[in-house]
Amino acid sequence: MDITAHLERLRQALALADTEELKAWLAETHPSAVAECLDVLDEAELNTVLGSLNTEQTANLLSYLDGTKQAAVAALFSNEKLASIAAEMASDERVDLLQTLGERAEKIIYLMARHIREDIRNLASYAEGSAGAVMTSDYVALKPEMTVEAAINTLRHEAPDKETIYYAYVIDHARKLLGLVSLKRLILSAPHEKIADIMRQELVTVKTDDSQELAAKKLSKYDLLAVPVVTDDEVLVGIITFDDVLDVQQEEATTDFHRMGTVGALKGAFSETPLWTLFLKRIPWLLVLVFVNIFSGAGIAFFEDTIQSMVSLVFFLPLLIDSGGNAGSQSATLMVRALATGEVKLGDWFKMLRKEILVAVAIGLAMALAVSVIGFYRAPEVAMVVTMTMVLVVIVGSTIGMLLPFLLTRFNLDPATASAPLITSLSDVTGVLIYFSIATWYLDLV
Amino acid sequence: MDITAHLERLRQALALADTEELKAWLAETHPSAVAECLDVLDEAELNTVLGSLNTEQTANLLSYLDGTKQAAVAALFSNEKLASIAAEMASDERVDLLQTLGERAEKIIYLMARHIREDIRNLASYAEGSAGAVMTSDYVALKPEMTVEAAINTLRHEAPDKETIYYAYVIDHARKLLGLVSLKRLILSAPHEKIADIMRQELVTVKTDDSQELAAKKLSKYDLLAVPVVTDDEVLVGIITFDDVLDVQQEEATTDFHRMGTVGALKGAFSETPLWTLFLKRIPWLLVLVFVNIFSGAGIAFFEDTIQSMVSLVFFLPLLIDSGGNAGSQSATLMVRALATGEVKLGDWFKMLRKEILVAVAIGLAMALAVSVIGFYRAPEVAMVVTMTMVLVVIVGSTIGMLLPFLLTRFNLDPATASAPLITSLSDVTGVLIYFSIATWYLDLV
Repeated sequence: MDITAHLERLRQALALADTEELKAWLAETHPSAVAECLDVLDEAELNTVLGSLNTEQTANLLSYLDGTKQAAVAALFSNEKLASIAAEMASDERVDLLQTLGERAEKIIYLMARHIREDIRNLASYAEGSAGAVMTSDYVALKPEMTVEAAINTLRHEAPDKETIYYAYVIDHARKLLGLVSLKRLILSAPHEKIADIMRQELVTVKTDDSQELAAKKLSKYDLLAVPVVTDDEVLVGIITFDDVLDVQQEEATTDFHRMGTVGALKGAFSETPLWTLFLKRIPWLLVLVFVNIFSGAGIAFFEDTIQSMVSLVFFLPLLIDSGGNAGSQSATLMVRALATGEVKLGDWFKMLRKEILVAVAIGLAMALAVSVIGFYRAPEVAMVVTMTMVLVVIVGSTIGMLLPFLLTRFNLDPATASAPLITSLSDVTGVLIYFSIATWYLDLV
Repeated sequence: MDITAHLERLRQALALADTEELKAWLAETHPSAVAECLDVLDEAELNTVLGSLNTEQTANLLSYLDGTKQAAVAALFSNEKLASIAAEMASDERVDLLQTLGERAEKIIYLMARHIREDIRNLASYAEGSAGAVMTSDYVALKPEMTVEAAINTLRHEAPDKETIYYAYVIDHARKLLGLVSLKRLILSAPHEKIADIMRQELVTVKTDDSQELAAKKLSKYDLLAVPVVTDDEVLVGIITFDDVLDVQQEEATTDFHRMGTVGALKGAFSETPLWTLFLKRIPWLLVLVFVNIFSGAGIAFFEDTIQSMVSLVFFLPLLIDSGGNAGSQSATLMVRALATGEVKLGDWFKMLRKEILVAVAIGLAMALAVSVIGFYRAPEVAMVVTMTMVLVVIVGSTIGMLLPFLLTRFNLDPATASAPLITSLSDVTGVLIYFSIATWYLDLV
């Protein structure tokens, strides 16, 4: 059923004020689809829908709203009601919700049960972007001396409150992580077998202060449903599930995209970002690039006499400097992405450089051939200079584009900072110098 | 345990020719980690390791190797051996393996059981990039009249050969998809309950010819472990599991990255791509951009007299045209990513345009302020022209960058074709015209 069909049914129920049908629709429909439908409702309709949800349904719905909408919906509830809704949410979603509430959060936390309060303080204490900040504490824990039968009973009992029951984690009395048992393994084992005998002991784990990206990479690499998060003493504190990893992976790619387009990392949805924030995220790099471009201008000023004596050189200036930048943007893009996915590592730089130079020479010669045709036809007096310059700017641009991501990684900066505009501006400076140097030398010869 | 520790243990076992220890290591270690270790072995060592694997272990290992390495390892086995290994693989992995084998694939398919042969022909018949091409046929099917107890027994029985047993799909006699039962639901239900009574009937599905991207989006949106793939008649033909979606999502992002960097889509790993292929993937757009840049050159030629009379105008040429391109690259990047994640839709173009123009005016004014400082200090004779041009080129560049992804989407092209280099080149042409038009007009005035 797609969103249009859902919306139609919802609108009809609202129009007829058919409470039974509305409740039936809410019970049958995935909260993600309900969330999508809310976007187009007016305030009165929104209130009717929210009024027809029970606490658990409201909790599920809130998990699928982004920050701005969460805050708007939360504003419609009393503190007491919101506390009971938040108590029903998954532990990681609950912390996200509270973080959108600002000062009101403290009042709501105060209204919750003590073990939930402690859980919130604990989860909220990890740095943004860390595994600790994205994990949930709603995992199933088993003891090694349990039987399979007892373990399955525990799973049955705890299922409603847990993020997943397909993986259960085996811990000792000090909550140290001993092993993992999947539900698959449990139903394939005899009821009287001991958990200690059937658990997997070689586990893939992450530490609380590892990056979310590392957790995502490990889960994806080993095709896991969830990765356990442990302290330095191997004490289990949470798990990160595949659905959160899908989001993390998508967010990481978005941040890299934006960085490659010289836009600072945005918090939350782009379409919700206010004008002023967008301005602040975009202006810094544009100003840095103006600064880099001043060197191109200075280069040109240095060669003023050459230009004065042969103005047709200027015709080819944008074409030549852009070509170097374009070839460089290509190699930077290839390197940034290969470094981000882990396919290429810092140590591979020399192998990559060798390959890049060979490709760049081939590209430079092909481009020079193309430009020489135009050159000899349109401006034969500068055609040789343009052709020679093209080979060189492509090779230099490609090399800059290829090396910069490695250099940035080497100094613990994000390789995606090697954006197309930065490479273009750097290639412009070198391109101007190469072009007019060759021109000065060659025209002196003639 | 990280890779270094694994490698150490493997190397020691190989050095001591300790077959028992080698087999123990292979049994305990995740095939993904084994695959990573193989990279650094020489041929003799590789042969020893492969010789110590049983058929099932070899099948698992092959699933974790990329195309080039799969082909290399497959070359070490006889056709008969490879057929029995392939028979052990997941159905989607098996098709991937056979596709790397070229002509040899036919001989191997011929050696396999009839139902596997049919499964291979079926899976291989879907277009690359479609849901059909990435799905697996190794799902658990249940009948609606089964009891929960019988269903759990079916899961137990089929577990070893299935991609997941956490979701089971309920089908009728014509294999039409009726519903879904999760293992969680099964263990929470009484043994005598009927599957028809406990199954979920409102299902999220994709069609065989839907894109992999759509399947990934649906799985991620609804936090599913797997999405069923059906024909137009709702007949269940396969499932796509979360681990494949993680890979699809990563590959889609990589393709978009490369497209944004004007590199054609690469098949397989970048580091394995041969030089000649890289050349062919990079040269087309570079030549297109040369063509676009000819217009910049023609624009400059048109204004030759203006330039001749005031050469200092050229100092600011790279700075001005790049600034337009940079601001445009930013807006293109924001739009391309927002369209790719589905956060912004085609219909939002006008709302986005309004917002973009407001941001662009603010950015243009800030940039103009910055450049006017340099202008009045270095070349007062052109400072006013440079300042006015900056405001305009930033607004025009941003508008081009923002609109192009929408236009491309409108004509069913990939919005990521609106790459930074393309935006830069287009902004260059308009920038040249704006700059020298203003200059001619203003200098005439003075």
